[in-house]
Amino acid sequence: MSKFVRHFFVCTFDRPEGGRGSCGTSGSAAILSRMQTALFARPDLWPTVAVTGTGCMGLCSVGPAICVYPEGIWYTGVSAADAQLIIDEHLLGGRVVEKLVYHWPES
Amino acid sequence: MSKFVRHFFVCTFDRPEGGRGSCGTSGSAAILSRMQTALFARPDLWPTVAVTGTGCMGLCSVGPAICVYPEGIWYTGVSAADAQLIIDEHLLGGRVVEKLVYHWPES
Repeated sequence: MSKFVRHFFVCTFDRPEGGRGSCGTSGSAAILSRMQTALFARPDLWPTVAVTGTGCMGLCSVGPAICVYPEGIWYTGVSAADAQLIIDEHLLGGRVVEKLVYHWPES
Repeated sequence: MSKFVRHFFVCTFDRPEGGRGSCGTSGSAAILSRMQTALFARPDLWPTVAVTGTGCMGLCSVGPAICVYPEGIWYTGVSAADAQLIIDEHLLGGRVVEKLVYHWPES
């Protein structure tokens, strides 16, 4: 079993400008960096919390997209302010930021 | 909540040859490609199963590393034969390949 109680995956996939957009061109690299820096400063959390950059997760048009497992929480359209809230509340505090949660359409 | 009942994350991070190794230099790109190709052929699974490439997840010396959420299952040292078993059993069939599961050391 995973040792991580919350594992953040931040899409950093780049698509060319002018199409349907991408997390990479929406600022996700800076978000990933801020999250990893915040976690780096909290070694007490390293055994149970992780942050990983990813390729495309399919939410290009509403990026930047982040998912958090095993909770199965998704955040999309993450602004710099959103990112700080997610860092303070969810990454470091373990509390889901409900107002930012993305709900997948029924498929 | 996530719509995915199993979301495979395959590390494709490359480190220079000669150091502690990396998933990228251990063949993970081919594994990711095979997994995505297998899933592409099964559109019935697209609403509930996903495969995503990632950056480093910290298991460089025992790569290629794959994790599967929300189950929290990890596979490491994945050979080509292992990858086919994981595809047939876990990706397409939903059955964990117990004999390949990686157990994190107690931290």
